Amino acid sequence: MDPYGSIYWDAGRVRLLDQRRLPAEEIYLEITDYQEVIQAIRTLAIRGAPAIGVAAAMGAALGALAMDTDDPVQFQVRFQEICREISQARPTAVNLFWALDRMLLVAQSQEGQGVAALKERLVAEAQTLLKEDETINRHLAQAGQVLIHDGQRVITHCNTGALATGAYGTALGVLRAAWEAGKKISVWVDETRPLLQGARLTTWELGKLGIPYILIPDGAAAALMGQGKVDLAIVGADRIAANGDVANKIGTYGLAVLAHHHGIPFYVAAPLSTFDFAIPDGGHIPVEERAGEEVTHLWGQAVAPAGAPALNLAFDVTPHDLISGIITERGVARPPYSSSIKSLRRA
Amino acid sequence: MDPYGSIYWDAGRVRLLDQRRLPAEEIYLEITDYQEVIQAIRTLAIRGAPAIGVAAAMGAALGALAMDTDDPVQFQVRFQEICREISQARPTAVNLFWALDRMLLVAQSQEGQGVAALKERLVAEAQTLLKEDETINRHLAQAGQVLIHDGQRVITHCNTGALATGAYGTALGVLRAAWEAGKKISVWVDETRPLLQGARLTTWELGKLGIPYILIPDGAAAALMGQGKVDLAIVGADRIAANGDVANKIGTYGLAVLAHHHGIPFYVAAPLSTFDFAIPDGGHIPVEERAGEEVTHLWGQAVAPAGAPALNLAFDVTPHDLISGIITERGVARPPYSSSIKSLRRA
Repeated sequence: MDPYGSIYWDAGRVRLLDQRRLPAEEIYLEITDYQEVIQAIRTLAIRGAPAIGVAAAMGAALGALAMDTDDPVQFQVRFQEICREISQARPTAVNLFWALDRMLLVAQSQEGQGVAALKERLVAEAQTLLKEDETINRHLAQAGQVLIHDGQRVITHCNTGALATGAYGTALGVLRAAWEAGKKISVWVDETRPLLQGARLTTWELGKLGIPYILIPDGAAAALMGQGKVDLAIVGADRIAANGDVANKIGTYGLAVLAHHHGIPFYVAAPLSTFDFAIPDGGHIPVEERAGEEVTHLWGQAVAPAGAPALNLAFDVTPHDLISGIITERGVARPPYSSSIKSLRRA
Repeated sequence: MDPYGSIYWDAGRVRLLDQRRLPAEEIYLEITDYQEVIQAIRTLAIRGAPAIGVAAAMGAALGALAMDTDDPVQFQVRFQEICREISQARPTAVNLFWALDRMLLVAQSQEGQGVAALKERLVAEAQTLLKEDETINRHLAQAGQVLIHDGQRVITHCNTGALATGAYGTALGVLRAAWEAGKKISVWVDETRPLLQGARLTTWELGKLGIPYILIPDGAAAALMGQGKVDLAIVGADRIAANGDVANKIGTYGLAVLAHHHGIPFYVAAPLSTFDFAIPDGGHIPVEERAGEEVTHLWGQAVAPAGAPALNLAFDVTPHDLISGIITERGVARPPYSSSIKSLRRA
């Protein structure tokens, strides 16, 4: 188990580590209202595609628990409304929709049951989803760690550790598994502007794991690659299209281009729940645009002149032809992705 | 004239706009001691290669003025010491050494003169250097603005405006001249971590000039290029080798690779004083490494866990083969640079 969990279920409440306050303070929010879960997702108290999925499921469970009806039909209708509401928290990470679909399916499969049984079943399902996420990530990490060699200097972007998931992590989980397998790796951590998930969260996790790292501004990645100081790049994903195009934190696409230019392998690590098989390519992935204040201000203090216009795209899309492999819990998909992703799905 | 000057000479004092406090406050430092000039350069109260050159010359003039000797020989020896001391303020921008060499040459050329005359001559030379810088930049801007077309969306990195120079600017001067020529351009401003010269200074200057801009995190440049929203990239330089390799603010090399990948022209704008004809290529340019705290802290507040190791390379080197042209006061050098730079030098 991790010494910290990004989110867990605790006697009818959701407890989640408020990632906005890391690394300065480790404070858990205690949530009983599903609308507070929506707020937590929207304001990035919890973030990372797999963790968002877990939070959405637990939010739905909270919504179910709080429902004041004994009529199973009314319950189902209202539960669908709640899930629809939660699904609007953020648009890009597909795990949000995937988790809610799963909760809806569970509710529907319980037709004929009373409300109390339905509630119990949904609460159990949200907890199962969390447990499964850890298992999935551990499998993914094992599948990926064979790609990491002793002594390699690996660059990563944003945060993909236990904080971004139910536990263990995706891309950072791969590095963790490599480290636990005795490989003496070191990590270049992109700080990841604007919200500094690399500087605030990835460093914090690597520090706890004892894995050596050096924090860099995002703009320094190219110089290090040019100097031959980067052996491999690995990132997570918020949504992967059927052709292998990957939406991930803004800056990922640039890192992929730089890796390509320097002949450095560029891997993506994500569970199958991050794949959106319904969309043919990355052009169809909705990219969230967040408030410009996240760029112009830091902790309430302005870094730009008052009223300075800023564009704050939360994600970018990396075309599949820049990706060396996509690491999943069922193995590593390699180009051509259209067929390899299909095979993994069927596996 | 600009509504603000980065630096000027005022009755035996150097007055310089403290760029560390922009955009929040416009405060001029009043300096009479050359060692304070060194501190101002080192702590980035004044920055930008041409502005550093002017500051160094004015610092040398302050050092000369304050000298307490009537012996011209003693004066020359001590003046050399002062210039050597100032030359250690920062290592990368070659304008620093160029300006000091020029001041030393002036001192040496005045052999036989008394100390009072020497002082007067050196103070005049520092002011001349500032005036020349404005003329040079205006010529450079005119040479460059023909490369900018009406309606273009231009990306730039760091700050290269009047603040970074004696007046008018280099890369930003080119955009300013294009704007003054009636071309309706707009500018994507890289915020330029870690010290946010783009967010703090370039936005401030573009705002005063009335040129439309949008601030972005450095990591967003690739996404905008991929979406076809960037027509041209233009940056300044801190030192240019004889083969056209360019040292400039960290992040420049990455931007050049991205521009290359997307088929976007990438221009560098710099006066001939930024060329170092003595070094064959960029591998010989000393790159300053600054304190990690500039990455881990912002205005004294930590953005990373206590003790997080960070690498803070102030500059990177862009190989000449990624550069479409180098804009100087004598015209635009084109590949192959070894010969075109030589021709400009002789022009």
